[in-house]
Amino acid sequence: MSNINIYDIAKMTGVSIATVSRVLNGSEKVSEKTRLKVMEAIKQSGYTPNVFARGLGMNTMQTVGIMVPSIADLYMSSAVAFLEDALHRIGYECILSCSGFKAEDKASHLQMLLTKRVDAMILVGSTYAGSGDESHNTDYIRTAAGEVPVFLINGLVEGDNIYCSATDDYQAVYDVTERIIRSGRKAPLFLTDSRSYSAVRKKQGFNNAMKAAGLKTPAKLSIHTTNDVTVVRELLHKRGEIDFDSVIATDDGMAIGAIKYAKDKGLRIPEDVCIVGYNNSALCCCTDPELASIDNHVEAVCHSTVDRLQRVLSGEQDVERLVMLDCSLVERETLV
Amino acid sequence: MSNINIYDIAKMTGVSIATVSRVLNGSEKVSEKTRLKVMEAIKQSGYTPNVFARGLGMNTMQTVGIMVPSIADLYMSSAVAFLEDALHRIGYECILSCSGFKAEDKASHLQMLLTKRVDAMILVGSTYAGSGDESHNTDYIRTAAGEVPVFLINGLVEGDNIYCSATDDYQAVYDVTERIIRSGRKAPLFLTDSRSYSAVRKKQGFNNAMKAAGLKTPAKLSIHTTNDVTVVRELLHKRGEIDFDSVIATDDGMAIGAIKYAKDKGLRIPEDVCIVGYNNSALCCCTDPELASIDNHVEAVCHSTVDRLQRVLSGEQDVERLVMLDCSLVERETLV
Repeated sequence: MSNINIYDIAKMTGVSIATVSRVLNGSEKVSEKTRLKVMEAIKQSGYTPNVFARGLGMNTMQTVGIMVPSIADLYMSSAVAFLEDALHRIGYECILSCSGFKAEDKASHLQMLLTKRVDAMILVGSTYAGSGDESHNTDYIRTAAGEVPVFLINGLVEGDNIYCSATDDYQAVYDVTERIIRSGRKAPLFLTDSRSYSAVRKKQGFNNAMKAAGLKTPAKLSIHTTNDVTVVRELLHKRGEIDFDSVIATDDGMAIGAIKYAKDKGLRIPEDVCIVGYNNSALCCCTDPELASIDNHVEAVCHSTVDRLQRVLSGEQDVERLVMLDCSLVERETLV
Repeated sequence: MSNINIYDIAKMTGVSIATVSRVLNGSEKVSEKTRLKVMEAIKQSGYTPNVFARGLGMNTMQTVGIMVPSIADLYMSSAVAFLEDALHRIGYECILSCSGFKAEDKASHLQMLLTKRVDAMILVGSTYAGSGDESHNTDYIRTAAGEVPVFLINGLVEGDNIYCSATDDYQAVYDVTERIIRSGRKAPLFLTDSRSYSAVRKKQGFNNAMKAAGLKTPAKLSIHTTNDVTVVRELLHKRGEIDFDSVIATDDGMAIGAIKYAKDKGLRIPEDVCIVGYNNSALCCCTDPELASIDNHVEAVCHSTVDRLQRVLSGEQDVERLVMLDCSLVERETLV
């Protein structure tokens, strides 16, 4: 019975892992009846402190480290909300670390989390996967994975003890670009704010859909900017010419900047210019017209991540290294 | 020298607390020169492990617990971003706990955080202050304060070892209501989504400004709803009558619902109906017209909190129990 752990005890007794943990920590928040049931199961299972140490917070703190570049970002805060909730339900607390986007800060924040003796690490955002082609950018993740299992959300990094969940951003952008071209548009403007793995995939999707339709993308119709409504609105005004008939943005803020610009110029949306954002954030319902956006199903990705985290920590072998989900397009008023 | 702590060593050597902590944890991220300087200061100060235990993560984890009702909320995620950044700079990591709004969940989440041996606790949001008049609602906070210092953001709770930062929401709503009345409006609609301490204060500000102007608020012009654009838009449509000439909302989402409704009805903003939100969130720049909103200076409140947290943990006496900041009105296009 030496492989038994806290999850088995929870299953045997029909109570939550948090409750088993409370019993073992001597918390008063547990009824006497439950306490006796859990203690009986522990006795029957051949409990020894060492066997349970990992699950009991004796050698660990029953914590998971979550690292995001910025918790003020809508996508990140939404992901952390789903992760925290799912982790809390299985008896884990979260240590949150906001690393920013600089390589050296990411590495030092990850290192700091490791000193907190976390049981696992979840990195949210494709910024942690570098640009997807420079393996040295992600060595710090492989180093951390030498100590605890590492889970990436929306990033792909290969290595032992590394588990990835992502949405198929390539296909989502390919599909929406193809749809926009089929509706008769010939000059889509592509707006992105990142050179992360996911951003690279989105751009590939855009470029390949253009190529498949026999269209070229002039350099000036593929813009790298920041995900800020006002910045994009002013940027488009500065360019001075309206040489696009549609906009595909890799985050909603940029798409909303394009809506503002189009209205300033007296363009009709979607007749003169159609616009689509990404992430399907709370912003989409605030604009007028309301913004169509690609939903990358952050809740499903987070649940898949915590599900596999629980299985990895309970010792299960052969847990899927990569789960890839499809995105879906949420149509509102800015697409024809 | 027995009162010396990690902050004193940092001050003596002119390096950050994080660096002192790294030296004491044997991290390789510190230059040899700095390491020697810190070790020398420790020797001179009469270092013993016990003296330093608190500051070293020996008896503690150098962590602060942050509890929010929901990290997906724009105000909360923005506050946590500022708190995490400021805490990280002084060598603390954050354990994040999202409690929801139910009393029993708040208490159990707080209890769980305490089992993680945090050095202090920060509760973000006035939901933790109950409705401001029922002291039994906040007993769980006083209980926690028996173990570690507790800092409230945007809530007021009295008790030993409890420190509060808030903005003067009463005055902010009083002032904007008075301004709207002075501009000739006689029937403001008040929208709120909460019965928290802060929500009660906002409503008092509204009621008192109305009273001071000799105006009455019919019950149907004071609505309790949820902070959701679509919910408020539909709610106003269901009422069927346009019996208000201005809207004061206690969060931006509700104000945006009112913008949507006004536009559906062909009302001009701000001429026929003027609208003001609260929190000055990222949503305000997405709407058309852009939403005026009361800014409650979350960054300043968070910095004041972490500043006092550091002083309390370093043993300083007489740290201010209450810091109250003024809000300011950000004018955009929805106010006359």
